[in-house]
Amino acid sequence: MAAKTKRSSTGSKGLTYADSGVSIAAGDRFVGSIGSLLRRTHGQRVIDNPGGFAGLLRLDYNEQLFKHNYKDPVLVACADGVGTKVHLAIEMNKHDTVGIDLVAMNVNDLIVQGAEPLLFLDYIAVHAVDQQVLYDIVKGISDGCKLAGCALIGGETAEMNDLYQENDYDLAGFSVGVVELKKATNPLRVEPDDIVIGLESSGVHSNGYSLVRKVLKHAKLKLDKVYPELETDRTLGEVLLEPTRIYADSIVKLLRSYKVKKIISGMAHITGGGMEGNLNRSLHDGVDAVIDERSWEVPPIFDLLQKHGNIEEAEMRQVFNMGIGYCLIVRPSFADAVIRRLEKSGEKPHVVGIIKAGSGKVKIKNRRK
Amino acid sequence: MAAKTKRSSTGSKGLTYADSGVSIAAGDRFVGSIGSLLRRTHGQRVIDNPGGFAGLLRLDYNEQLFKHNYKDPVLVACADGVGTKVHLAIEMNKHDTVGIDLVAMNVNDLIVQGAEPLLFLDYIAVHAVDQQVLYDIVKGISDGCKLAGCALIGGETAEMNDLYQENDYDLAGFSVGVVELKKATNPLRVEPDDIVIGLESSGVHSNGYSLVRKVLKHAKLKLDKVYPELETDRTLGEVLLEPTRIYADSIVKLLRSYKVKKIISGMAHITGGGMEGNLNRSLHDGVDAVIDERSWEVPPIFDLLQKHGNIEEAEMRQVFNMGIGYCLIVRPSFADAVIRRLEKSGEKPHVVGIIKAGSGKVKIKNRRK
Repeated sequence: MAAKTKRSSTGSKGLTYADSGVSIAAGDRFVGSIGSLLRRTHGQRVIDNPGGFAGLLRLDYNEQLFKHNYKDPVLVACADGVGTKVHLAIEMNKHDTVGIDLVAMNVNDLIVQGAEPLLFLDYIAVHAVDQQVLYDIVKGISDGCKLAGCALIGGETAEMNDLYQENDYDLAGFSVGVVELKKATNPLRVEPDDIVIGLESSGVHSNGYSLVRKVLKHAKLKLDKVYPELETDRTLGEVLLEPTRIYADSIVKLLRSYKVKKIISGMAHITGGGMEGNLNRSLHDGVDAVIDERSWEVPPIFDLLQKHGNIEEAEMRQVFNMGIGYCLIVRPSFADAVIRRLEKSGEKPHVVGIIKAGSGKVKIKNRRK
Repeated sequence: MAAKTKRSSTGSKGLTYADSGVSIAAGDRFVGSIGSLLRRTHGQRVIDNPGGFAGLLRLDYNEQLFKHNYKDPVLVACADGVGTKVHLAIEMNKHDTVGIDLVAMNVNDLIVQGAEPLLFLDYIAVHAVDQQVLYDIVKGISDGCKLAGCALIGGETAEMNDLYQENDYDLAGFSVGVVELKKATNPLRVEPDDIVIGLESSGVHSNGYSLVRKVLKHAKLKLDKVYPELETDRTLGEVLLEPTRIYADSIVKLLRSYKVKKIISGMAHITGGGMEGNLNRSLHDGVDAVIDERSWEVPPIFDLLQKHGNIEEAEMRQVFNMGIGYCLIVRPSFADAVIRRLEKSGEKPHVVGIIKAGSGKVKIKNRRK
């Protein structure tokens, strides 16, 4: 049996359901609750479209007082999921944070291109509709959208009990942002002597969870146990489920504060592939990024995983963010000012490297063993 | 094991892979082939972003000769999957058309709001990467984007063998379009005496496949058999896998041809919920749509499913499109002209009903038994 539940941009009237799998009364409750989760993310630019076939968002804002028009707007769009981190959420029966991960994985990619996140849509595929689980998932997505400053204007819930096993679900997210053509990041801007600033991650983020789960199983680690080496009173499960940090607010603020000068020459979201597999995407063929691995501390969760999984350092570096979730490449004379601004926004920035003439690669010095 | 393969807006340089699950050589071949599937959908407005974190598309086109700027652009966005039609594709081991369905399910929703489709992204979740299957899926998506006139600027392939069973996969799509604020459809425009024009579907489209598969199993129908009552030499499987018609091209052309006059007062994409559950979404509380069920012929595939599944007429009407995949509500004096234009675009339009004063409902007259 498959039932698809469409959630479009909502007005106070509620949502429209093309759904045969949910009882009307239960469905109505669900609609009401989800509706408010969407609306709390809506700014002035979202156009109410109750029962509509799609979500609507005005790109420009033409009201007198806050008039804002883009000159040559570039839409920036991406799609991503959270991978097998959903399994951890399912095992722990805690579903209200993977939505934050979902938003993070998308908007952290958008902002790399210089974009401000505008809108978000989700796709939730489930074995069967469990209202509480679905509510929690959408609650997390809504929280993520609030953090990222983007509007959750729609989504799709697909109930497919022959594709997904009991209690299983999968999540995909889609996000659109906008940037003025002149302000879009471009690898060609990166120059030797530019400084690489790394922003701390909140933990494992949303990459490498298949390996994480392999380690858990292999070393018989317990999700509900507090491990002293994690230096926290949170359980291992809580540390692992910590949502991916959303860098959108800090980065958008930073980009806005340097409207004219192009002092940020590149950025990178550190996901699967690690620093070496992501920062290189922001470089042109004439430069390398030389990263000093001793310039930040690796959070204890990675040491725990490495120890119990007996994982080689190179493998760790390729799979995990190792403590740095986002990088900025900035003009050297502005590095200090950028760091101060990022600290003010609540980030924990570190100078992690420098750009040298090269061939488009990330090189690691002072490797950890 | 989970590997995520990011496909961003591609230049001739190729794509970037953050992927540990595919061999480099095989991966390179895949990248090359997928890259061209994306590029063939790209118009002038797509900005090459090889290795980028997201896809880029210029909203306005500011080059001298074809200069085009939106005055008050509204972004229209939606997310959708193809439901269990993927199972049929998997059973038939034919994967190059479900991508068309995926695009159709999304862009047919976008155009209802008056939007022109701009861009598309996909999410493909698989048990394991099978290059040929993945290529075929993306080929279908690319074909769909060509038909819909939108750019495939990215996507995500997630390999999750503990969530998906062998050979299984799921698809989600996401589409963004744009419409001038003044031209966005609005249910309030619909008036008594407006004419409802229905466009023929290409078959079952992408809704009701759980019921279809139940019927197949129950009546032991064979996918590879030609059934005379289908009045075609195509097999049942071929008829069922026929891709969802993409109405974007015809509708966008039509909307462009009536730039000033608002002669189209509403539209509806007929999906799960049928005519009664979708056309009502285009009505305000003061009008009904009265649909004459004898005004078009129900395609034989629906009769076959109904007969072999012993399905009640009301159930059929709620689950399937019954031959009409898209509706337009137009001012009466323009109905003939609109029909002629749609025919020129290759559609098969029928006058299927009329708008009356009412309460926002779809009423069926001359019901089939």
